[in-house]
Amino acid sequence: MTTAVAVRYLAARTLETGPAVTAPPGPGEVEIAPAFVGICGTDLHIFHGSMDARVKAPAVLGHEMSGRITQVGAGVTGWRPGDPVTVMPLRWDGDCPACVAGHRHICHHLNFIGIDSPGAMQQRWTVPADTLVRLPDALALDRAALVEPVAVAVHDVGRAAVRDGERVVVVGGGPIGVLIGLVAKSRGADVRLAEISGYRRSVAERLGLSTWNPADDDIAELTDAWTGGAGADVSFEVSGAAGGVTTAVDVLGVRGRLCLVAIHPQPREINLHRFFWRELTLVGARLYERADFEQAVALVAGGTVPAELLISKIVPLAGSAVAFETLERGDVMKILVECV
Amino acid sequence: MTTAVAVRYLAARTLETGPAVTAPPGPGEVEIAPAFVGICGTDLHIFHGSMDARVKAPAVLGHEMSGRITQVGAGVTGWRPGDPVTVMPLRWDGDCPACVAGHRHICHHLNFIGIDSPGAMQQRWTVPADTLVRLPDALALDRAALVEPVAVAVHDVGRAAVRDGERVVVVGGGPIGVLIGLVAKSRGADVRLAEISGYRRSVAERLGLSTWNPADDDIAELTDAWTGGAGADVSFEVSGAAGGVTTAVDVLGVRGRLCLVAIHPQPREINLHRFFWRELTLVGARLYERADFEQAVALVAGGTVPAELLISKIVPLAGSAVAFETLERGDVMKILVECV
Repeated sequence: MTTAVAVRYLAARTLETGPAVTAPPGPGEVEIAPAFVGICGTDLHIFHGSMDARVKAPAVLGHEMSGRITQVGAGVTGWRPGDPVTVMPLRWDGDCPACVAGHRHICHHLNFIGIDSPGAMQQRWTVPADTLVRLPDALALDRAALVEPVAVAVHDVGRAAVRDGERVVVVGGGPIGVLIGLVAKSRGADVRLAEISGYRRSVAERLGLSTWNPADDDIAELTDAWTGGAGADVSFEVSGAAGGVTTAVDVLGVRGRLCLVAIHPQPREINLHRFFWRELTLVGARLYERADFEQAVALVAGGTVPAELLISKIVPLAGSAVAFETLERGDVMKILVECV
Repeated sequence: MTTAVAVRYLAARTLETGPAVTAPPGPGEVEIAPAFVGICGTDLHIFHGSMDARVKAPAVLGHEMSGRITQVGAGVTGWRPGDPVTVMPLRWDGDCPACVAGHRHICHHLNFIGIDSPGAMQQRWTVPADTLVRLPDALALDRAALVEPVAVAVHDVGRAAVRDGERVVVVGGGPIGVLIGLVAKSRGADVRLAEISGYRRSVAERLGLSTWNPADDDIAELTDAWTGGAGADVSFEVSGAAGGVTTAVDVLGVRGRLCLVAIHPQPREINLHRFFWRELTLVGARLYERADFEQAVALVAGGTVPAELLISKIVPLAGSAVAFETLERGDVMKILVECV
């Protein structure tokens, strides 16, 4: 038995940092010492109590992480203590219609580690060995904690099938929107990112993305001028706002593709006439597959995605509650919790 | 100069049948004697006055037709008087962004013949020779008048990329819905058609389609039972109703594709969460391309689409107004106007 520290969600706006008793990893499992854990929008929803129907408190959150293996369970081959890793935090049942069709990442009974089962915001974390993704030794672990959101972006850009030379509008410039912009750019696309926050626009610009402020200008008009009246080839809705959906539809040219990334719990009004008139496509994107994760590691390790520029702040485990409060005030990009 | 009879739309609910003076076809043009002209939902919208902003009265309607060439203009090769033809009623500008991208059927300045310029509901009709589509001599001209809506269905099934063995739900069983069902079936799909009208369901059943009545059962529940909880691979929204959109979303399984066929002038509320959760795709479909038209001729001529079973009634030119009134009362499939 090891005694380590964990951050637990107890109830809306209440986190507790305290000791956690951990058992050695069972057969097929691996114990990790998480180094850095990113806080994402979903974690913030949980913190607000919006997901209490799904998250069983007390719950350890965190699914964007990097760390090193500390112990290896029986029957696990190919991994050793000290190996730097990240985790693809999905477990599927393998026999539902989604799994049978080969789409295990959208399994009908998906167990999302960090939401449906204990997450990484602790000093010792046990996970199934087949969720591990190897990190290059040379990759700094703070940057590596961004592999998971980069995998989301890789999956989204793949779902939208972005091609070389296409014009892309990203609506919403939080971490995922910015990463989508970078991944699309790495595929040869010309990207514009629409974001209200001046801080987030400045981070995006520093990363080499061109930005627009929807508070100053009509994004559809800017797109029209930019594309000579043709409209964009692809848009990404990453804002989660009703107006963001409208914008992502309005910017598209004939046969344009809208990739829906943000979560919209409530129904949204959509201009279906434009979908008919211009033969548009809307494509939903959720999470990632293993190939996305492996590509994400390569993009971060190779510097195509300079992940370090997205890190606004690093806080210790005991500072997690403050970190959540900072995140909800906005004007911030990625906050990491350091677990060691 | 020939004097012939034409049906003209004058104002909401007002059609006039009377003589029309026609000039000989100009260079590159062909004069046709239309034999049969189908009345479609768009014609009915025009009849109701809903498209007065676009349709300049007095206007000759009609774009679903068959007929024979009567005169050939200067410079037209490959066509002779007496040739049986139908017309793909689209003219594009050739240099807008849609045309440049190769999608001329959704040209930014599309001229739809029969809406934006004079249509086929007359005894002599002059059109550009490059709109002609050849009909086999053996194909009866009443059946051939359905080639245009069959081309719509071919285009829709193509946009949805329906594959052999897929399970397809068609929401709305008017002529286009039924034709989509038949074309999807010809591609090897297993099809269910949801339609409230008992008359339309009976026509669909006679054509070999399995039908469901949304007034009796929840279509999503029926689909769930039919597919063992997996959901449908493809749905077509052909009803034009808000509830139809909801149904077409709710029936889909993981990575399912919704092909939007009906025109929804007003925005509709869409369950975007399901698009995210199941990685659904919505694809807009409008009109057809020449390949769709040629495939439609083959499907009708070869009997794969037994078009004659969709014809509810044939009326003479002078009976057009009554035909529109019959159509708006529903419980009817396709009505043809006979022009000779």
